[in-house]
This record gives sequence, structure tokens and C-alpha cells, in this order.
Amino acid sequence: MQQAIALASEAASRGEVPVGAVIVQGGVVIARSANKMRALNDPTAHAELLAIRAACQALGSSVLADCDLYVTLEPCPMCAGAIAWAQLRRLYYAAPDPRRGAIDHGCRLFASTDAFHRPEVIAGLEEAAARQLLQQFFQGLRD
Amino acid sequence: MQQAIALASEAASRGEVPVGAVIVQGGVVIARSANKMRALNDPTAHAELLAIRAACQALGSSVLADCDLYVTLEPCPMCAGAIAWAQLRRLYYAAPDPRRGAIDHGCRLFASTDAFHRPEVIAGLEEAAARQLLQQFFQGLRD
Repeated sequence: MQQAIALASEAASRGEVPVGAVIVQGGVVIARSANKMRALNDPTAHAELLAIRAACQALGSSVLADCDLYVTLEPCPMCAGAIAWAQLRRLYYAAPDPRRGAIDHGCRLFASTDAFHRPEVIAGLEEAAARQLLQQFFQGLRD
Repeated sequence: MQQAIALASEAASRGEVPVGAVIVQGGVVIARSANKMRALNDPTAHAELLAIRAACQALGSSVLADCDLYVTLEPCPMCAGAIAWAQLRRLYYAAPDPRRGAIDHGCRLFASTDAFHRPEVIAGLEEAAARQLLQQFFQGLRD
């Protein structure tokens, strides 16, 4: 998660909402990305989605069933859906997102018994650091 | 929607699950894509997501607020989330997807009062043609 925090911090320095994501397989980082919505002019260029695409390219597989995703912010519905399609084993997220999160807020995608994939979810790892980055970023926008 | 159906049919001929998507602005098609999950080895390469990314590139904007999306299958949570981020005005979909749909099934993303964007939704346009393509495709896999 510390690598994901570092990616989020780099994103903030480029004017992006600070979110970072890392995908690990067998203790090895196989993909990582920061949020690039602004750089790519692409509303789908969230850190998680980019990391999932990179991991699939790295492994030559569209399934990441033995991989874990670390991300600094609770995933939105789009990224939660991508996690389901990629069949990721575990999701670790740092800060909650009460407005756009889809894991423990909003549609709670994986809580439903008819969800088509349900990763193990571990929330709160490095939450303070991730939350501070986000607060500083949005405070900076308001100043 | 007929253009989306044609894209879905082309996808089937390449061994892809037959889904096609078209984005229209002011009566003009600005982006289109078929499902390319298999060709790109990418679980996020759904027709809707690829069409949204193409439309944003075409317009130089990450917001598609005056655009409408036509897609042959009810969007999944990932694509519904992407529709919300892109702020698409209207969603037309052809066939329902009771297992993985997220509009009128599953998490019903736009039905929630706390959804962060809610496009107008029109279901059922060319439903029979879209449904037939999907049924033929999955029947072929079983044969």
C-alpha cells in the first residue's frame, strides 16, 4: 500500500486526484498505476482500471484470480465492476469514499448475494496517509 | 441502435461476445466500438467503455453530457459506472442482462437516490435482434 500511496502523491503533483493502485501476485508487484483522468482526458482512466489493464497485459491473461489489488481510495462502481471481471482475489483499500465508493458505500457491489464475483475486502490499510493526500488536494483546489 | 447491432454481429464473427456500442452527439455518430475483451486480452475492453474512451478522445473532453449511448446489451456495473463518470445524457440498451446487468438488474446503479449521475434510460430498442445474436453466440459455444 505504501507504493500505492507514493503513486497517489505523484498524481497529486500532476494535478490529478491522488489515487494510486498496485497489483501483486505471489508477493511480486506486477502492475501499478496512478489516476490519469486528466492526463489522458479519459473518465475511465482511474488508477485501478489502468493497473488491471496493465496486469492483464503483463500476464497475458484477462483473469487475475491469484492477484491482489491495493488502492488508496475505495473503488467506485466502475472500478469495482472491473475488479469483478478480472476476478481479483483480494481488494485492499485505504480511505473510504462515502460519495462515490461502491464497496462499503453506495451500491455495495460485492455485498450482494447475486454479485458475479466477490473478492475478499480489507479496508483501512494506510488510511490516514491516503486521506491526508486527498484532503490536501481538494483543499488546494478550494484555495 | 442498428449500427450497434452490426458491430455486435462483427464481434461475434471474431469470437467475441456480441456487444456493440455507438455514441451520438447532435444526431452524429462520434464513436463506436464492439466488445474486444478477447482481442485485447482485457477484461475492461467492453464495447461501452471503448466507445466512451473514443468519444472523449474525439471531443477532447472527459465529459459527454450532451451525448447518448446506444448499446446492444444492458451495461454491467463497470460500464454503468463509466457512463456515470462520463455524464452521458441518455442510455439506450437493447437486450436485458439479468445476470450481470446493473441498470434494471443487480445493483441498479442509477435507481439509487444517491447515484452521482443518472442518465435517462430507454430499454428494449432492437431487443429481439440483440438477443438473437447473443443466443446464437452462446449456443455456438455449447455445440
